[in-house]
Amino acid sequence: MALQNGNTKKLDIVIVGGGLVGSLEAIYLAKRGHHVSLYEYREDLRKTPHVRGRSINLALSVRGRKALKGVGVEDHMVNEHGIPMRARMIHRPDGTTYPIPYDARTNQCIYSVGRNYLNNILLKESEKYDNVKKYFNHKLLKANLQNGSLTFLKTDTKETVDVTTDLIIGADGAFSAVRKEMMKQPLFDFSQQYIEHGYLELCIPASEDGGFLMPPNYLHIWPRGTFMMIALPNQDCSWTVTLFMPFKNFKDIDTEEKLLSFFKQYFPDSITLIGEKKLIQDFFGGSPSPLVTVKCRPYNVNDKALIIGDAAHAVVPFYGQGMNAGFEDCSILDELFQKHQDDVPKIFKEFSETRWKDCFAISDLAMYNYIEMRDLVTRPSYLIRKTMDDFLFWLMPDFWVPLYNSVTFTTMPYSQCVKNRDWQNKV
Amino acid sequence: MALQNGNTKKLDIVIVGGGLVGSLEAIYLAKRGHHVSLYEYREDLRKTPHVRGRSINLALSVRGRKALKGVGVEDHMVNEHGIPMRARMIHRPDGTTYPIPYDARTNQCIYSVGRNYLNNILLKESEKYDNVKKYFNHKLLKANLQNGSLTFLKTDTKETVDVTTDLIIGADGAFSAVRKEMMKQPLFDFSQQYIEHGYLELCIPASEDGGFLMPPNYLHIWPRGTFMMIALPNQDCSWTVTLFMPFKNFKDIDTEEKLLSFFKQYFPDSITLIGEKKLIQDFFGGSPSPLVTVKCRPYNVNDKALIIGDAAHAVVPFYGQGMNAGFEDCSILDELFQKHQDDVPKIFKEFSETRWKDCFAISDLAMYNYIEMRDLVTRPSYLIRKTMDDFLFWLMPDFWVPLYNSVTFTTMPYSQCVKNRDWQNKV
Repeated sequence: MALQNGNTKKLDIVIVGGGLVGSLEAIYLAKRGHHVSLYEYREDLRKTPHVRGRSINLALSVRGRKALKGVGVEDHMVNEHGIPMRARMIHRPDGTTYPIPYDARTNQCIYSVGRNYLNNILLKESEKYDNVKKYFNHKLLKANLQNGSLTFLKTDTKETVDVTTDLIIGADGAFSAVRKEMMKQPLFDFSQQYIEHGYLELCIPASEDGGFLMPPNYLHIWPRGTFMMIALPNQDCSWTVTLFMPFKNFKDIDTEEKLLSFFKQYFPDSITLIGEKKLIQDFFGGSPSPLVTVKCRPYNVNDKALIIGDAAHAVVPFYGQGMNAGFEDCSILDELFQKHQDDVPKIFKEFSETRWKDCFAISDLAMYNYIEMRDLVTRPSYLIRKTMDDFLFWLMPDFWVPLYNSVTFTTMPYSQCVKNRDWQNKV
Repeated sequence: MALQNGNTKKLDIVIVGGGLVGSLEAIYLAKRGHHVSLYEYREDLRKTPHVRGRSINLALSVRGRKALKGVGVEDHMVNEHGIPMRARMIHRPDGTTYPIPYDARTNQCIYSVGRNYLNNILLKESEKYDNVKKYFNHKLLKANLQNGSLTFLKTDTKETVDVTTDLIIGADGAFSAVRKEMMKQPLFDFSQQYIEHGYLELCIPASEDGGFLMPPNYLHIWPRGTFMMIALPNQDCSWTVTLFMPFKNFKDIDTEEKLLSFFKQYFPDSITLIGEKKLIQDFFGGSPSPLVTVKCRPYNVNDKALIIGDAAHAVVPFYGQGMNAGFEDCSILDELFQKHQDDVPKIFKEFSETRWKDCFAISDLAMYNYIEMRDLVTRPSYLIRKTMDDFLFWLMPDFWVPLYNSVTFTTMPYSQCVKNRDWQNKV
C-alpha cells in the first residue's frame, strides 16, 4: 500500500519490540485504524516468569499517565495497581530516616508500578483490536529502512521470515536492532555512553503477616556519595531494592564477609529487612548490569522508519523518566497523526525535528541527577534550595515550578523545564 | 604464537587499513621485528589514479614530522616534497588580502604535502622490511576481537580469506570496520557527530609558464562567516581549493548562473584563478562530502585488538591535525613498545587509558576552530588576542605558548595545550 499525502488509506505498520513502548504504540496506531504487526524477540511474557536483569518496578508520573489515559488504562494502573510514593525517604548511615516530599503543596505523587504487570495490561488491551497481530519469538535479523523490508528469525523453529511493510517503528530498546540499521544512513548522529556505575537488584520480602516492612508510600533512598541504594514498593508488599555502585566496587566485594561488613557500614538498617542469607544469595547470584545513555538524530528514515522510546533515547534511571519519556513519544506521535491526518512524511519530519531537543534535555537531567541523588540530596545546600523552591512554588504556583516538579508533574517539554531552571538559577 | 609478558617473541600482527596511519604503523612494528600483514580494501594506490572525495593535500606539522622522522622519511617529506606555509593569507570579499603569520618569532611553519605521495613513500619504505606483507583489494567482512580471527573478501576474485593473528590493529579510517566489531563489546563508549557543513574540492591550475597563480607559501583562506574556502599549494604548482558550506547552501546553488553569482559576490578573486568553465565543471561534477567527528573509548579489546588514527578519533579538518594526531598515535605506540619491551597487555592498557584525553581535546579544538576559522578570524577581537598572544610569546617563549602554536609546533599533549589555554584566558 503506497503512502500518499493526507492519507486516508490505512497503513501496514510493523512495530519492532513488544515491550512497554512498543505495545502502547501498537494500541495508539490500531485506534487510528492502521494494521499493526508487533514483533517481539522474547516469548510472550504472559507465559514466562520474570527475566532477571531488567528493573522490576518503575515510577509512573504525569507524562506516562497522560499516554496511558489516551488508551484507557491510566485509571486502572494508577488507582488499582500503582502504589503512590509521596516523598523520598532518606536513610542515614546510622539507620535513622527523614522524608523529602515531592510536592508538599498539591500532594501530587509518583506511582510504583510493575514493569511486567503494565506490559501485560497493554498487550491484553491490544487484543481488543482486530487490526493488531502479535508475533513473539521473532528476532530482527536485518531491515531495509528505505523500502520497508525486514527479515526475522523465529527463535523457536529457526525459520526466517521476510516481511514488507509501509512503516517500520523501532521500539526495541537501548540496544535497538532497528537503530543499528539506521546507523548505515549518512549524516546520522549517534552516541552511546556508559556510566561508571552498574546496578544490582535485591529484595526486601513482605512481612510474615503479609504487610510492608517499611513505610510504603515512599521512594526509599540510601545516598552514600559515590554509591547509593533505592527501594520501590511492590504490590505484593515486597520491595525491589537497587544498589547503584561503580563496577570496580562490585568487583572488590568478593567474599560474604566483605559483603556483610560493607552493608553493616553503609546500609545497616537494610540487613535485617533483606535478610543476611537472602542478601548473600542475591548479591552473588547476579552480576551488576550496565547503564547506558543513547542520544541520536534524526529519529526517522524518510517516511519509512522511525525509532521511539529507549531505541531513540535511552537514559540513565536517576530521574525516573525513561518509561515516561518513551510513553510521551506515543502520545506526541498520536497528536501528530491527528494534526497531520495520518500524513506520514509530515508526521515523521515534525517528530524528528522537534522531539530530540526534549530527549537530549531529559538525558542530561538524568545524568545530572546521577550525581545529585547519591550526593547532593544529603548536603545542606540542596535542602535550602529545595525549601526555597517549594516555598516560592507554594506562593506562585504558575510562575515558579521547581525543576523536579515540572519534569515529573507537568507535560511541559523537557527542554523548556531546563530553560526555566536556568532562569530560576539567575534569580 | 601466544602472547607472554615481557615478550621477546615476535608477534604476528594484522593491520587493517593501508592508508597513511596503517602504512606508517606497519613500518614501526616491522622495525621492532614483528611480522606484519597489512590489509587494504582498495587497490594498491601506486597503480591507481587519485580517488575523488578524499582530500588531496594535507598540512604536516610537528607531531606528524616527529612520527615520520622515526621511520626516516621526515627529511624527504619536509625538505624535498613539502611546500612550507608560513602564514594564513586572508582574502577579503573585495579581493584584497593580508597575511596572519603562524609564528612570527621562530618562523616555524606547516607543510603542504600530497596525501597519495606520502602514502606512496610509506608503502615504498615498508618494502625495505621482509617482515611486512601487503594485501590489497582485501575488504574486512568480520573479525572476532577476542580471539584474533578475521575474514576478508578479496574484491577482485570474490574469494573469502580467513586469517588468525596475535594482534589486530584497526587503522581503517573514520568508518572503521574494526571499530564496528568493537561496538559489540560491553561498556564501549562511542559517538559520531556530523557537522552541518560539507566540503567540495575545486582546483586552481598552475600558470601557463608552470608557476603558482597565488603566493605559494601560505594557506589561503576566504572566511565568510557561515561558510569559507581554503587553498593549499600542490607540488605541480596547482592549488587544491576546498569550499566548506552547509549542505543546504550547496543544494540551493543548482544552476550555473547561481554558482557564478555566488562566487562573484563572495570569492570574486578566485573566479579567474579557477576559470569559469572549470569552476562549473568541478562544482556540478562532484557532490559535497560530509565531515564527521568520532570519539570512542576504550581503544583496545583486551590484548588482542587496538584502533588508531581516524578509526579511533576522526576529527573535523579545521585544526589541520587529523593526520598529525594519527601519526602521533604511531610514535606514542612505538615509545610504549619500547618502554614495556613489547609486553602487549601493558602497552594496550596504557595507550587506551591515556591517549583518549588528548584525542578528545584535539577533537574539541577542531570543532572550536570550525567556527573560528570561518568567522572569528575576521573579527577585531581575534586579531587583538592574536597580537597580544604573539607579543607575550615573543617576550616569554617558554612560558606563554599560544594555543595554535602549542598544538601545531610542539608535541605537548593536546589536553595539556587546552589546559594551558584555560589558564591563559584567566590571566
